[in-house]
Amino acid sequence: MDFKSKIKTIEWVDTYSKMVDQTVIPYEYKFVNIKSGDEMFEAIRSMIVRGAPAIGIAGAHGVILYAQELEKENLTRDEFITKLIQKAEYMKTSRPTAVNLMWAVDKQVDVIKNSVSDIRGIIEELKQNGIKLENEDIEINKKIGDFGSEAVPKGAGILTHCNAGALATVGYGTALGVVRSAYAKDNTIRVFADETRPRQQGARITTFELATDGIPVTLITDGMCSYFMKKGLIDVVVVGADRIAANGDTANKIGTYTVAIAAKYHNIPFYIAAPLSTIDISIKTGDEIPIEERSHEEVTHINGKPICPLEGVNIINPGFDVTPHELIAGIITEKGILRPNYNQSIKEAFINKDNI
Amino acid sequence: MDFKSKIKTIEWVDTYSKMVDQTVIPYEYKFVNIKSGDEMFEAIRSMIVRGAPAIGIAGAHGVILYAQELEKENLTRDEFITKLIQKAEYMKTSRPTAVNLMWAVDKQVDVIKNSVSDIRGIIEELKQNGIKLENEDIEINKKIGDFGSEAVPKGAGILTHCNAGALATVGYGTALGVVRSAYAKDNTIRVFADETRPRQQGARITTFELATDGIPVTLITDGMCSYFMKKGLIDVVVVGADRIAANGDTANKIGTYTVAIAAKYHNIPFYIAAPLSTIDISIKTGDEIPIEERSHEEVTHINGKPICPLEGVNIINPGFDVTPHELIAGIITEKGILRPNYNQSIKEAFINKDNI
Repeated sequence: MDFKSKIKTIEWVDTYSKMVDQTVIPYEYKFVNIKSGDEMFEAIRSMIVRGAPAIGIAGAHGVILYAQELEKENLTRDEFITKLIQKAEYMKTSRPTAVNLMWAVDKQVDVIKNSVSDIRGIIEELKQNGIKLENEDIEINKKIGDFGSEAVPKGAGILTHCNAGALATVGYGTALGVVRSAYAKDNTIRVFADETRPRQQGARITTFELATDGIPVTLITDGMCSYFMKKGLIDVVVVGADRIAANGDTANKIGTYTVAIAAKYHNIPFYIAAPLSTIDISIKTGDEIPIEERSHEEVTHINGKPICPLEGVNIINPGFDVTPHELIAGIITEKGILRPNYNQSIKEAFINKDNI
Repeated sequence: MDFKSKIKTIEWVDTYSKMVDQTVIPYEYKFVNIKSGDEMFEAIRSMIVRGAPAIGIAGAHGVILYAQELEKENLTRDEFITKLIQKAEYMKTSRPTAVNLMWAVDKQVDVIKNSVSDIRGIIEELKQNGIKLENEDIEINKKIGDFGSEAVPKGAGILTHCNAGALATVGYGTALGVVRSAYAKDNTIRVFADETRPRQQGARITTFELATDGIPVTLITDGMCSYFMKKGLIDVVVVGADRIAANGDTANKIGTYTVAIAAKYHNIPFYIAAPLSTIDISIKTGDEIPIEERSHEEVTHINGKPICPLEGVNIINPGFDVTPHELIAGIITEKGILRPNYNQSIKEAFINKDNI
């Protein structure tokens, strides 16, 4: 097994969505089949599937699942469409921050609205579109990887936070796509993976992905990043994104902002790697990005066991933070590396968006 | 129970050292009795006792324990002194970074060298000196608390990293001594405690101490500090120290440097709270402070369970990092708050050191 070839970590299979269960990595590597819309909602919420591009695809699959369920209700075509669009809107609420979810669900809603087919035909078109989105995701990630690898110096130490890898996308990854493409050209690069408390996606998933592909990876705790930067072991930081505002401000997993500040202090370039679908041009700045507040147990428990007193201690658990554009050296997309001024470079990338 | 009164978390009792077992907090709060020098060495190494001032006292107790053992060997007074000083030097190697260990052991060595008593008399003097160091530690911490509370704005949110509390000292604490004194004056202050991976002293010990004393505390993961700084919830950072160089560069628990950079970025004052015994005027800068490399299992396991793949993943586990003096707003000592230029202010504090 490896994650560098065109393996899909989430894919539509005939009548259901098949995905890697990310909650049990690295203890187990297994696929689960999601067979209803509500199951998909819960799979997204509970992070069986996670990573902005992957939950986009999951949302698109969720719309197909709801469509299959509504087909059985003997509705008129108009009733079917109305109810399905309601379900699609509901699916978008499963997680609030990553905009790819809204983007991919909206792509399915466009299919529904533009279709001239009967109910069965609409469902068929939704499936075809779902699979198209999957394939495009991998293609986009390979482009991100290739563009991004140009930003990685020879023999570099690359720091990443959370997991923006094959398991956060359909395959290949965004930030880890950059790592994979860079490693294919230069096998002397090394990766430092932040543990990424509270959910430990770095410790559990990024190390698993990179170790599986034989790419050298060192696991560090989140507080250690500055230590290794000062030591000169980190030459570039590359992370994914959950939502990017029109000015380049970027929401990503909590802790990213701290890494970006540390990188700035050490004059280390800090890059975002994300498809254009992660950019929300409808919002001007990161202040408009909703930040998900998640369960306290993610902070207070690890592997089911408490790590702190459970009485008399307050918890706040924001799932994401926003890194302001001034800390970002570039946004690596499938259209190339966007540079400041981001208002301008993002606008230009969107004008040429469909000429990939 | 509370930690604000003169409770001793480590103390000499007749023929042994009694200390809180810090490895089982918050699951249990229990005392262990350390009855031999080698047991003390291991208690320090394995962090049954931790926190720079506390391991200083532990080292001083360890010298008494070795003295009691050597007394049974029928040595001449000269042989006893030679062997005991060798044992004392060995005790200093139990942990390399916190200089209080070396300082307190050297205080005992001074007692040995200056004594005119017989072997039994020397042991008695070592016990008296050990107890004197304990009592002084609490007195010093109350002074640190009182001076430091002046640096805490009304209603402040105070961020701390690791545990520099009653459990890191004999009692009252250094950074948490500042919190205790500030809270006694103004019960609207609130504390944010960094989890402090890998050993989670913030999650396990700082929250336990503060919750026990009824001081409002919010546990956050290490990566979250910048998020809360940007939100305006943190007004001041106060942490302890393991060793301070003559220029003010400060070694403290790994992750501290990252917090200091984040504080600087947000223009939030970052303070060190430590007794003068933590200042090592023999070294010019933080570059000379030895950084302990600890067991990989501290990173890879939590509560005995792995949190990452155990094959194909590299680990580096520095126990401490050095915060450069330019990030430090002040060093809160028993002689007042030292301000930049630290070379000057530290020198002055040492000149007046014994006029407490």
